[in-house]
Amino acid sequence: MNNEENLVDESHPRYQSLMIRKKVADAGAKGMLADSAMIAHGRGEAFDYLLGERTIPSALEATKEAAARLVRARKPVLSLNGNAIALAGQEFLTIASQLDCPIEINIFYRTPERMGALLGHLKMLNTKLGLDVEILGGVPDARIPGLEGPRGACQSNGIFEADTILVPLEDGDRCEALIAMGKEVLVIDLNPLSRSSGRGTVTIVDEVTRVATNMIQIIPQRPQATEWNNNHALQAALNHISTKITNRFQ
Amino acid sequence: MNNEENLVDESHPRYQSLMIRKKVADAGAKGMLADSAMIAHGRGEAFDYLLGERTIPSALEATKEAAARLVRARKPVLSLNGNAIALAGQEFLTIASQLDCPIEINIFYRTPERMGALLGHLKMLNTKLGLDVEILGGVPDARIPGLEGPRGACQSNGIFEADTILVPLEDGDRCEALIAMGKEVLVIDLNPLSRSSGRGTVTIVDEVTRVATNMIQIIPQRPQATEWNNNHALQAALNHISTKITNRFQ
Repeated sequence: MNNEENLVDESHPRYQSLMIRKKVADAGAKGMLADSAMIAHGRGEAFDYLLGERTIPSALEATKEAAARLVRARKPVLSLNGNAIALAGQEFLTIASQLDCPIEINIFYRTPERMGALLGHLKMLNTKLGLDVEILGGVPDARIPGLEGPRGACQSNGIFEADTILVPLEDGDRCEALIAMGKEVLVIDLNPLSRSSGRGTVTIVDEVTRVATNMIQIIPQRPQATEWNNNHALQAALNHISTKITNRFQ
Repeated sequence: MNNEENLVDESHPRYQSLMIRKKVADAGAKGMLADSAMIAHGRGEAFDYLLGERTIPSALEATKEAAARLVRARKPVLSLNGNAIALAGQEFLTIASQLDCPIEINIFYRTPERMGALLGHLKMLNTKLGLDVEILGGVPDARIPGLEGPRGACQSNGIFEADTILVPLEDGDRCEALIAMGKEVLVIDLNPLSRSSGRGTVTIVDEVTRVATNMIQIIPQRPQATEWNNNHALQAALNHISTKITNRFQ
């Protein structure tokens, strides 16, 4: 990315969105992301644009519900991919520290270089924040049933044995495979129509840094889990978009 | 992009979309695109997903209208950026040949390297297709009023003097500046809510390779321009999306 692209004017109406984009671009330059990560980020931007680039009420409710289930869990884990680490690595370390649970790095296009860059980045942030969060994923010793190749690799004391998993920006196959293992899967995804969104136990339709920031505020309140109708939450997000695009051009 | 990412299974339900994505990734690897091009492509993918990844009826009407106006124009030009060239360079050369008009390369983040790669790519395709389409943009000698820096650079015998311009995937500022010059601006944009879409004389809400392929069929029929209500076309696209997302989750 050249210098011209790095200049973002604070007065720009989409300044926050452009700063979030810059984090992804910077992480790409550091070797933390596959090329497809940029495209995935763009897809998210489009849905966020349709949502108004803010946390809608149903998403805040879903964030509270997910926080409650993480607090209640016997063995929670945060499963992070490259984009989640690039966008909110620091916030997720804080959440893992609040919950006293590990983070497991799990990336779709696994290469030793990319895993090394992501592990190094989280360890650097751990030190910077004065935290001691356990970072898993580097030495997988178990498999998620039904997933071929490196995507199925996980750690026994992390994802494999967890009862409740937070999966920001998960791919659909992995989400389904984790659900099939009987786990509670808490999804963060800006696309309410994705397979992950549809299959998740609780789906938060919101941008990952906003979710993580909200969750840091909510967890200390120790919220109670409720009967959760995830389809209601997904339709609420779609209805929000629908309202925005109805009768726009007369 | 590693080899694993390049494998696309033809049976995948989104095979066409993944093949289109691969064209962008390949062009990126050849130095034809800014990093932001990947993100822009992802945004487009999200809107295409909401449209059903096909040409909706209102988009086909808009394509016919744009073709009619290009046929009618005294001095038409196709203004192409990196993504448009990566996705449908060959098709746009065919259209320029049908219309006997030039192509002008005009990119947001202009560097000599990227301009060179794009000029070279189009010249290679020109030869491959046995065409002799004039390719402008390499030696700008005029300016679009109201645009600062390299974004305002253009050629007098191309964009500057044209009465009708096809602008696939244009940025909002440039679209507005071209309209302010009194030109007919024919926009191709998957986001019906973008500034370009809203300001265009005729906006085609469709994926750029599908539009170019349709246009090649339509131009020889020499369609007639009509009274065109662009807001109707934009709302039709939004209504199509709205129908798709209403009552999805009961």
